[in-house]
Amino acid sequence: MSEHFFDQAVALRPDGEHTFRGAAHPAWANMVGPFGGITAASALNGVLSHPQLLGAPIALTVNYAAALGPGDYRLAAVPARTNRSTQHWTMAMTQPGADGAEETVLTATAVTAARRDTWSLNDTAMPSAAPPQDCGRFNPFGVEWLKRYDMRVVQGAVPSTWDGGGTDSLTQMWMRDDPQRPLDFLSLAALADVFFPRVWLRRATRVPAGTVSITTYFHADAAMLARSGTGYLFGQARGQAFSNGFFDQTAQLWNEAGELLASSHQIVYYKE
Amino acid sequence: MSEHFFDQAVALRPDGEHTFRGAAHPAWANMVGPFGGITAASALNGVLSHPQLLGAPIALTVNYAAALGPGDYRLAAVPARTNRSTQHWTMAMTQPGADGAEETVLTATAVTAARRDTWSLNDTAMPSAAPPQDCGRFNPFGVEWLKRYDMRVVQGAVPSTWDGGGTDSLTQMWMRDDPQRPLDFLSLAALADVFFPRVWLRRATRVPAGTVSITTYFHADAAMLARSGTGYLFGQARGQAFSNGFFDQTAQLWNEAGELLASSHQIVYYKE
Repeated sequence: MSEHFFDQAVALRPDGEHTFRGAAHPAWANMVGPFGGITAASALNGVLSHPQLLGAPIALTVNYAAALGPGDYRLAAVPARTNRSTQHWTMAMTQPGADGAEETVLTATAVTAARRDTWSLNDTAMPSAAPPQDCGRFNPFGVEWLKRYDMRVVQGAVPSTWDGGGTDSLTQMWMRDDPQRPLDFLSLAALADVFFPRVWLRRATRVPAGTVSITTYFHADAAMLARSGTGYLFGQARGQAFSNGFFDQTAQLWNEAGELLASSHQIVYYKE
Repeated sequence: MSEHFFDQAVALRPDGEHTFRGAAHPAWANMVGPFGGITAASALNGVLSHPQLLGAPIALTVNYAAALGPGDYRLAAVPARTNRSTQHWTMAMTQPGADGAEETVLTATAVTAARRDTWSLNDTAMPSAAPPQDCGRFNPFGVEWLKRYDMRVVQGAVPSTWDGGGTDSLTQMWMRDDPQRPLDFLSLAALADVFFPRVWLRRATRVPAGTVSITTYFHADAAMLARSGTGYLFGQARGQAFSNGFFDQTAQLWNEAGELLASSHQIVYYKE
């Protein structure tokens, strides 16, 4: 059986202390460079592959400084501080520029932690929705990476007519890897970034847009991931403000049982 | 006239290329180290003081790796990538450890940008609330930094009895610097972190808690800051999930005119 496209794309080769090498995968191509979610997952994989890792991911912030080009990238993943139960990471992806010198294409930080059993509460109920089987599958268009997901929109699909008449920015959808793959921290990090630009929905106008920075908080631990398995996630995203070239997106991802696995936020560049 | 405590606290001295020195200020003391918001503002000040700065802040992520101790800290603020209209920054605060070697106490990233006039929309209405003058002023207790703010709670005050009977995690309040100080990006970054731990409110139980990572997106530009002036901000914060030692907080900050100036998110450690 051939390896899943997801695992192929996030694969890293150790290349010295705190350093790995990887490459963008054509199966995840976006309009310019790969889908940002797979790049975020690759950066996180540097942390999770590191021999000094403590615990599991709690927080991940990824800043997209430039489009990832073809060919190898270099990923540095450095444990900047290790405490008794938490660990702070800085990451950077670089690629050779026109003059051959390494140039930064991505910066990132992560926090990992050894969780303890505490009082816990899922305090944001999953919205009620028709089951995924009753929702039409989103028909991938234009870019390759959309074929890597089975997405079933409940509300807030990509506008079918670009008539400038949008009313809100809320999308709700079921989603999972295609083909199915048991959920892990890497695929959860990628899934947090699958929503199309909120500005398209809010304005029913298609303008150039791209994520500048994304932060994902992981509420799931290994047991919650295992309970999620290959099931659908229910994802919700909305924008809060659109202001002179940048809008924000706040998102939540639940498993089918209604457990909030992750909350995610991003700031997105848009034109016009 | 003596300098405002805020300006005293975020002050930095250049100390080589990409490097500054500063120190925690006793007026901002928290239980352990200074208030996280003032430390975040200090890290951002490294970016805004840098001679190579392009534009104004769009995104700021600060990770608190260890309590900031007394005495000088070293702040590195490095422009990792400068594009035509955006700039990506990495920051780190270090202090000498027990053996004299520099140890990381904070890592951070920021994005700055030259904004362009585009279609814009404040898409999250400020909740209706009694005006600040009709809300009782929050009485600072226990820690010094609380005296630096004039906070007037509309809803979701610190529980007066710790009876384990909380029902939700929503706080809404008016807030501004005390004494008044015209709003800027630094004070906005600090104000995004003034909310007490959501777990205290949700459980009506006081447990040890501290911010691990905070991300703030700035929707305000210089003109919007100028319009806000020394007026109150309306701040709102709630938790979405509390899960084995970490909860998240999502927050919004409007000016009195109802413009959404910033949205902010944090992940917070809690015990028990």
